[in-house]
Amino acid sequence: MSQGQRVVLASRPVGEPKLSNFRIEEYESPVPGEGQVLLRTIWLSLDPYMRGRMSDAPSYAAPVPVGGVMEGGTVSEVMVSNDAGFAKGDIVLSRAGWQTHALSDGKALTRIDPAIAPISTAVGVLGMPGMTAYTGLLEIGKPQPGETVVVAAASGAVGSAVGQIAKIKGARAVGIAGGKDKCDYVKGELGFDDCLDHRAPDLAAKLKEACPKGIDVYFENVGGAVFEAVFPLLNTFARIPVCGLIAQYNATEVPVPKWAPSMMRAVLTKRLTIRGFIVTDFAAQHADFLRDMSQWVREGKVKHKEFVTEGLENAPAAFMGLLKGANFGKQLVRIGPDRA
Amino acid sequence: MSQGQRVVLASRPVGEPKLSNFRIEEYESPVPGEGQVLLRTIWLSLDPYMRGRMSDAPSYAAPVPVGGVMEGGTVSEVMVSNDAGFAKGDIVLSRAGWQTHALSDGKALTRIDPAIAPISTAVGVLGMPGMTAYTGLLEIGKPQPGETVVVAAASGAVGSAVGQIAKIKGARAVGIAGGKDKCDYVKGELGFDDCLDHRAPDLAAKLKEACPKGIDVYFENVGGAVFEAVFPLLNTFARIPVCGLIAQYNATEVPVPKWAPSMMRAVLTKRLTIRGFIVTDFAAQHADFLRDMSQWVREGKVKHKEFVTEGLENAPAAFMGLLKGANFGKQLVRIGPDRA
Repeated sequence: MSQGQRVVLASRPVGEPKLSNFRIEEYESPVPGEGQVLLRTIWLSLDPYMRGRMSDAPSYAAPVPVGGVMEGGTVSEVMVSNDAGFAKGDIVLSRAGWQTHALSDGKALTRIDPAIAPISTAVGVLGMPGMTAYTGLLEIGKPQPGETVVVAAASGAVGSAVGQIAKIKGARAVGIAGGKDKCDYVKGELGFDDCLDHRAPDLAAKLKEACPKGIDVYFENVGGAVFEAVFPLLNTFARIPVCGLIAQYNATEVPVPKWAPSMMRAVLTKRLTIRGFIVTDFAAQHADFLRDMSQWVREGKVKHKEFVTEGLENAPAAFMGLLKGANFGKQLVRIGPDRA
Repeated sequence: MSQGQRVVLASRPVGEPKLSNFRIEEYESPVPGEGQVLLRTIWLSLDPYMRGRMSDAPSYAAPVPVGGVMEGGTVSEVMVSNDAGFAKGDIVLSRAGWQTHALSDGKALTRIDPAIAPISTAVGVLGMPGMTAYTGLLEIGKPQPGETVVVAAASGAVGSAVGQIAKIKGARAVGIAGGKDKCDYVKGELGFDDCLDHRAPDLAAKLKEACPKGIDVYFENVGGAVFEAVFPLLNTFARIPVCGLIAQYNATEVPVPKWAPSMMRAVLTKRLTIRGFIVTDFAAQHADFLRDMSQWVREGKVKHKEFVTEGLENAPAAFMGLLKGANFGKQLVRIGPDRA
C-alpha cells in the first residue's frame, strides 16, 4: 500500500504545547485483516479536550501514550472493506486520530450520508461539538423563555451552538469572544443579543450591563477570568453546565479563584447547580440531537463557521492556536480530498 | 390577657453570637382580631439556619430586623380562635418564633394530629429537618444500592435522617460527628456503617479508610474541614446536595479552601453535581415525605433523638451551643406544657 503520515505525541507538554511535543512520522499504510476496513482521513477535527489527552493527570479518559498517535475524531473514506457492513467509498465518522490512514472494525464507525449536509459537519455542528452544546444546555442548563444564558468562546464550535439554541428556546443569549471581529459575527450573524470581548479590562462591568436581569445559565467551557466575571451575577437557581476549562488547560498552576471563599455560600443561598459533563454522558439523547439540530441547520436557525487548516503537518500549530483562540469557527484540518 | 415573654435580636453578631446579641422582653399577650387565632407556644425548634437570619448579608430570606422577634418554627396550641378552620385546643405547626404567645391567621398554620406521633416531631423528624434530609438526599443525592453516602452532623436532626434513609435505599452510610458518644450512637443506634469523629486530627485518612469505594453522595450541611476531607474521595458522577454550612456560619472571614484551585477541574473530569437547596424548594414532595417518613418512623427504620432545653430564657444559650455541636439530637426548647 501507499505511504502514510501521522502525528505522534513526542513528549508531554509542560504549560503551552510546543511543536517539539509533536513528531511527524511516515509509515506504511496498513493492510486490513478479517472484518477490518482501511480508512483514508478526509477531515481531522481539532478540539480543546485533546490538551487533556497530552497530559497524564487523572481525567475521564486515558492519556495518549508518549510515542502514540494523537487521538481525534475524523471524517474518513473506506478504501478497502473486509466488513460486510461497509463498502469501498463509504464516508464514515471515525476516531482515526491524527493520521492519513487507519484500520478500524466496523463497530467503531458511523456512516455519514453526504446528501444530508457537508460531510465535515459530522465532526462539527452535527457532531460532538454540536451535541455538547445541545445536551449541556438542554439537559443541565434548561433555559426558560426570558432567562439569560451566557457562554464564552461564543464564535467557536460549542459556544456558537449554545447561544443559538438558547435563542430558539426564547432565552436572551450573551456571548463572550476574543476580539471585535468575532464579537461582530456572534451578534450580527449568529443573532446573540450581545457579545463582549474577553480581553476588555472591564469585562465584569460590561457583563453586568449586558445582563441587567442577572445570569440564569452560564455554560462553562473556558474557566478563568470569565467565570470570575460571571460569578457575582448568577441568579437564584442558576445552572452551570461545565464541559471545558480551556483557559486552564495550559496552566502549570491554577491561581486561587476570587470566588473560592464565597463559592459554597453562593451555592447554598442562591441554590446554584454546578454540574460537569462530557458529551458521551448523554448518549441517550443522540437521536433527539440529530433530529433537532439537522432541522435547525436546514432552517438557518443554527449557523456555523469552519476554520480550515490545510495538511496534517500543520495540525500541531493549528492545535496550539486553538488553545489560544486563534481559530475563528470550528477548527478542522483537511487531510485529504473529499474523493480520492 | 396574660403576660408574654419573647426573645428579640438586640444586635447583629460578629462571629459567634453572644448572649448580648439577644434580649428577653415581657409583653402583653395580644388579642386576636377578625380571622386571627391566638397561639401559645409549646415547642420552639432551634435550627442552624437562624444564624443566617441574624446577619444582614444577602441570603435566601430577609434578616430578622434588630429589635424584632427571633424567627423560628414552633408547635403551638390554639388558645382563642376567630378563624372557622381552627378550634381552641388545636395543636398546630406555626412560625410563631421565639415567644410564648403569637397571633396568626389560619393560612400560615398546619394542624398536627397528636394521635399520630409526639407533637414535637412536627419540627423534627416529621418536620423541616426530616424533610430537608429526605428531599436533598432523594431528589439531588439519589443514592443507589451499594453506593457510599457521607453526611456530617450525623447525630443531628438532618444528618441522622440522611444516613438512615441512605441505608433504607441500600447504600452504605458513613457519618461524621463530634465525639465518641455521638459516634457510638450513630453506629450502634442509628445503624450507620461507620462514624468518624470530626475532631480527629487524621480525619482525611480515616475517611478514606471508611470509604474504600470512594464517595458517591456527600450531603453537605457543615462545610469547612469535612469537605476538605471529602473532596479527594469523590467518585465520578458524585452528587453533593448543599443545605447548610454550619462550620462557616460564625466565620468573619472564610479561609480559602484547599480544594479551591482544583474545584472546577474536578467538577469537569469527575462530572460532579453540586447543588444548593432549601427545603421549601421541594414543597411538591411534602406528601411523599410525610407518607414515607411516618411509615419509617413507625417501623423503627428511622430513629430520632431530641435534645430538650427548658424555658424560653435559655433559648439563646441553647442556640449558641447548637452552632458548636453542644446538642446531641434535635435541639428543642420547651416553652410551655403540652396542655395548658
